[in-house]
Amino acid sequence: MAVSVEQARDLAMAAGLAVKGSTSPNPPVGAVILDRADRLVGRGATQPVGGAHAEVMALQEAGAAARGGTAVVTLEPCAHVGRTGACTLALLRAGIARVLYVHADPNPVAAGGARILAQAGVEVRQIPAGTGKDALDPWLRATKLQRPCVTLKVAQTLDGFSAALDGTSQWITSPQSREHAHLDRQGRDALMVGTGTVLADNPRLSARRPDGSLLPQQPRRVVVGSRPVEQMGAAAAHLQQAGFEQYATPQQALVQLWESGARDVLVEGGPGLAGSLLQAGLVDYLHVYIAPLVLGQGRSVSATAVGPSLADAARFQRRALRELGPDIMVELSALAPEG
Amino acid sequence: MAVSVEQARDLAMAAGLAVKGSTSPNPPVGAVILDRADRLVGRGATQPVGGAHAEVMALQEAGAAARGGTAVVTLEPCAHVGRTGACTLALLRAGIARVLYVHADPNPVAAGGARILAQAGVEVRQIPAGTGKDALDPWLRATKLQRPCVTLKVAQTLDGFSAALDGTSQWITSPQSREHAHLDRQGRDALMVGTGTVLADNPRLSARRPDGSLLPQQPRRVVVGSRPVEQMGAAAAHLQQAGFEQYATPQQALVQLWESGARDVLVEGGPGLAGSLLQAGLVDYLHVYIAPLVLGQGRSVSATAVGPSLADAARFQRRALRELGPDIMVELSALAPEG
Ligand SMILES: NC(=O)c1ccc[n+]([C@@H]2O[C@H](COP(=O)([O-])OP(=O)(O)OC[C@H]3O[C@@H](n4cnc5c(N)ncnc54)[C@H](OP(=O)(O)O)[C@@H]3O)[C@@H](O)[C@H]2O)c1
Ligand SMILES: NC(=O)c1ccc[n+]([C@@H]2O[C@H](COP(=O)([O-])OP(=O)(O)OC[C@H]3O[C@@H](n4cnc5c(N)ncnc54)[C@H](OP(=O)(O)O)[C@@H]3O)[C@@H](O)[C@H]2O)c1
Repeated sequence: MAVSVEQARDLAMAAGLAVKGSTSPNPPVGAVILDRADRLVGRGATQPVGGAHAEVMALQEAGAAARGGTAVVTLEPCAHVGRTGACTLALLRAGIARVLYVHADPNPVAAGGARILAQAGVEVRQIPAGTGKDALDPWLRATKLQRPCVTLKVAQTLDGFSAALDGTSQWITSPQSREHAHLDRQGRDALMVGTGTVLADNPRLSARRPDGSLLPQQPRRVVVGSRPVEQMGAAAAHLQQAGFEQYATPQQALVQLWESGARDVLVEGGPGLAGSLLQAGLVDYLHVYIAPLVLGQGRSVSATAVGPSLADAARFQRRALRELGPDIMVELSALAPEG
Repeated sequence: MAVSVEQARDLAMAAGLAVKGSTSPNPPVGAVILDRADRLVGRGATQPVGGAHAEVMALQEAGAAARGGTAVVTLEPCAHVGRTGACTLALLRAGIARVLYVHADPNPVAAGGARILAQAGVEVRQIPAGTGKDALDPWLRATKLQRPCVTLKVAQTLDGFSAALDGTSQWITSPQSREHAHLDRQGRDALMVGTGTVLADNPRLSARRPDGSLLPQQPRRVVVGSRPVEQMGAAAAHLQQAGFEQYATPQQALVQLWESGARDVLVEGGPGLAGSLLQAGLVDYLHVYIAPLVLGQGRSVSATAVGPSLADAARFQRRALRELGPDIMVELSALAPEG
């Protein structure tokens, strides 16, 4: 049965999502091969570093059926020859007649695949990303910024408090929100908190299935601050057992994470770290879980002001709005400061 | 052309909405009369106090065509004989065969209309309200509570601030949000602020059309606090010119407003008054306009805590969620405190 370009694109996007978290510093790409009659004959995704790229995986599955067919990939095929042979070359060798890709490669070292393919007589076209979750989003942002993409997650009351005046905070948000936030850990390269959160919550920072079992792929556990987690004893037992990395400042953490291959970091608080990141303009995506409660006064989501005046506010743009049981959840991306 | 029950109900609901703000303390009821063949022959709504009720207005328009027909009304026809003749009697005299009503009358003095009509051989049935705006909502809540229904409107950043640390607050929300909030004044019985807002903003508290012109029906302008507005000079020029009422406390204001006929009050701040109302459990509906900005720290929407602990939080239930340009708007109703 022939599949449409949109169906092939969605299958490729899903293949990329499935490997997200295991490919960094390489992008989690998905690829689909259709034969001459537009029948699905191959599907693949980026393998862990040193392994094959998505196109090569999909071509392997397709075999001879790829000749004269179409490759649908979520990222422009790479043109450099690094640890693995260039994907562009592999597509040409397999006799692919048409290449449809979603994102242009922002990496100057790897870009140019589309041009080379076109010069070799392949029909090459960029296609829209569709509306589903895009596994490449953080990787593209990180590549542009040359540091890991930072998503800050906060859970708060309607009036912006993540704890009451007396410190009580369990549970502000609904079970649906907490499950959604938990699933969002999946596929991240690292989970980051400040030392204050470690001391207060003895967090696990693990990605678990709804039944509580650990996922095979675990994000790196990262703590920011000068108080040594090793000396926190039972207050930090989970991290000490599971292993963690500690950095003195968020900036240092991001540099080290970038250099060691992380591209997508989820920050889960607390207010000290959140405030530092907001102030430094280091929040790329903001995920706000809002419970239908009003405290009037309490502990704010950020311990520090971004600036004294309204013009200093960190500005975001809404990407998604969901209802999670009684709560709502807003996903936003950072806007450049007003010029 | 015959109209369906749902169409007739929506027409009746719209007729009620159109007179909201001019009928208090009477409810803004809408009524529609269909003839034997379900053709629309009359439509009416509650007239200002001392004038006719909705059913009487609609029956007048229908004339003899009402005989054997259907009355669709947004509120159970009243059974008492007050300033105007009872609607129940009017429906019987007109020979109406079937009465469909949306809300039962919560007023013990006026209730019982449905029973009386049924005893007289009329087919009587309660029908669902539909999904549109319901003009009777605040009136029903007020009648149950025996005080005006209070809607608190707040405009804030994502993290719950209605002004920056230095006091700047213009404009946190988008033009779309501000227009939406402004249109929400229409049909209210009163607009209320604290003296702090008068001093800071010299507000007009008027209901205007999008083009800026005043609507014919203006809500009462109400100020809460002990600092006399008469002595604020130019800082309160607009209210002094347009006329206003001042009360020492929110509780006193609500008693006086109830006794003088107001049923639906919109509170537009500021944080002092908002905090008092939240603390006293006097907020029935909460309208939160949320702009995609993060200040980190700033001036909270409420100047006081509802209580020190998470268990003390004021709890709400989401009624509607809208996107207003870059902003979102959440409409909530109060939940009873946890027992
Ligand atoms: N509702 C939520 O979403 C949520 C999420 C997480 C935590 N929390 C709550 O937040 C509370 C903890 O608050 P917190 O502010 O102490 O937590 P935190 O932000 O996790 O930790 C603050 C610490 O992080 C380090 N840090 C932050 N920014 C830094 C910078 N720019 N440079 C160097 N170090 C930096 C500092 O560590 P050193 O002092 O060690 O140098 C600072 O004391 C707990 O009660 C926890 O339960 C709530
Ligand atoms: N973003 C928004 O949605 C919004 C809306 C409105 C205002 N604002 C801003 O809010 C600021 C003003 O803050 P504010 O707190 O002073 O304003 P406010 O709430 O309008 O006024 C506070 C005053 O109201 C009176 N009051 C409140 N609760 C009372 C109670 N339980 N009993 C007796 N009196 C009570 C007191 O008046 P007395 O001291 O006279 O007794 C109190 O000082 C301004 O900067 C204004 O621009 C923001």
